[in-house]
Amino acid sequence: MTGAATPPTIGVFDSGFGGLTVLRALIDRLPHARYAFIGDTARLPYGSKSRRTIARYAIESAQFLVHEQGAEFLVIACNTASALALDAIRDSVPVPVLGVIEPGAEAARAASHTGDVLVIATDATVQSHAYTAACHARGLRVIEKACPLLVPLVEEGWTDHPVTAEVIRIYLDELNAAAASQHMQPDALVLGCTHYPLLRSLIQSSVAPGVQVIDSAAAAAEAAARSFPGVLAAQAGEEHTIIRCFATDSVEKFERLGSRFLGRPVGEVGLVDLGG
Amino acid sequence: MTGAATPPTIGVFDSGFGGLTVLRALIDRLPHARYAFIGDTARLPYGSKSRRTIARYAIESAQFLVHEQGAEFLVIACNTASALALDAIRDSVPVPVLGVIEPGAEAARAASHTGDVLVIATDATVQSHAYTAACHARGLRVIEKACPLLVPLVEEGWTDHPVTAEVIRIYLDELNAAAASQHMQPDALVLGCTHYPLLRSLIQSSVAPGVQVIDSAAAAAEAAARSFPGVLAAQAGEEHTIIRCFATDSVEKFERLGSRFLGRPVGEVGLVDLGG
Repeated sequence: MTGAATPPTIGVFDSGFGGLTVLRALIDRLPHARYAFIGDTARLPYGSKSRRTIARYAIESAQFLVHEQGAEFLVIACNTASALALDAIRDSVPVPVLGVIEPGAEAARAASHTGDVLVIATDATVQSHAYTAACHARGLRVIEKACPLLVPLVEEGWTDHPVTAEVIRIYLDELNAAAASQHMQPDALVLGCTHYPLLRSLIQSSVAPGVQVIDSAAAAAEAAARSFPGVLAAQAGEEHTIIRCFATDSVEKFERLGSRFLGRPVGEVGLVDLGG
Repeated sequence: MTGAATPPTIGVFDSGFGGLTVLRALIDRLPHARYAFIGDTARLPYGSKSRRTIARYAIESAQFLVHEQGAEFLVIACNTASALALDAIRDSVPVPVLGVIEPGAEAARAASHTGDVLVIATDATVQSHAYTAACHARGLRVIEKACPLLVPLVEEGWTDHPVTAEVIRIYLDELNAAAASQHMQPDALVLGCTHYPLLRSLIQSSVAPGVQVIDSAAAAAEAAARSFPGVLAAQAGEEHTIIRCFATDSVEKFERLGSRFLGRPVGEVGLVDLGG
């Protein structure tokens, strides 16, 4: 537990490593805060699973961060869990909880002039229609597309590979055809999965000119800074970033791959058994 | 539980749908037996996870099949679980347990004239070196290669897609280069993952002439028929195949995709909570 003199701890949760891109954006914005990150690597990926199962898993991780790591704010750095389980997580812990869907939709609203937005995400996120609801609430038209091969391609390390470029082209062609059939003129594309920022350069070169690519990780970090003003006020209390990382499966793999997402060494990773 | 007049129940376990290709081969060989199949879809895939986690998950499914479905024989229709957890599963249940690794290696021995064998499989299966051990025990030389993108490509339904053909070509080129560097002359390729038989035609057209493609699912079904003679003797007791399927996540998805692997409708699928 954190004492009165220390800054609040921000708990960050993802199904795997991808959420480290959100942690990275949070550190850029709030470098002097304390962070506890857990990746539920024993049960990833969430993107192909059901709402009931995703909610059960996510609640266990949220409670670990709050009850065992003293997190006073939670950022759900997983689009799938944010889309399908945000209310369930909020009901399960006594601290403020921020997901990545609403910040992503808000960033799309700010970026789009035509009011027509594209979203690429996992199967489960798309089927939840969470981005559609968040965009409609802001007066935007939106088409979502599931891109289930992109996460495995990132995890294979093919982030700058011709096969990945071809898969992205196929997915975006289908998405653009769907938009054209509805007479939409999209000018913003939301990366609705925390793995996708690692494909940003390939995606950027595949979108039509004038379409802005929106990283929901950066948008979520901005929203966190606004939502948790206590962190901003207190963060001067630490001289450097304090990060504790946990995983539910192989910590060696986490330590090896995690730095690719975090952009710095993840340090020693603790193994956690959530009972699943 | 099965009564004295009924044939024994064969329990078949996989992390997901892929093991239905083993069940399909078992039904071809033993059409009048009873089958209970469980796919641990809430926690798939196993191929990227650690031995400890895979063993814990596999034991829970094995005990479900034996204690709740009355299985008197178990077939571990998952290469990853066979490679990393066969002994742990055998220690956890009081019935005979057959994996797919030994039958696959045995089929390679029977097929190969040069004694040089290739194996493609998941990350975890390759890192376990279980196929290498099983091949060495039979006097074969072997090179294994992890092909982590093939399962997602099958699950995307791209079983006859140019991208999949290109990914297979890249993986097999790397494998053939490794074999050439060791002066091997491989004439057999083992499909060391139950998803891969759905890519058989693409793989067959990518291997060098004279290389025989070996389906470990068919080999395991043959071994099961030999290992469990009681099933053969008793199977005349049923007039048609009886199959009960269970999954730990969305049964709708299982019912929808499962028939692609089983080659017939999977019927009603029961939802099981293994507590994870």
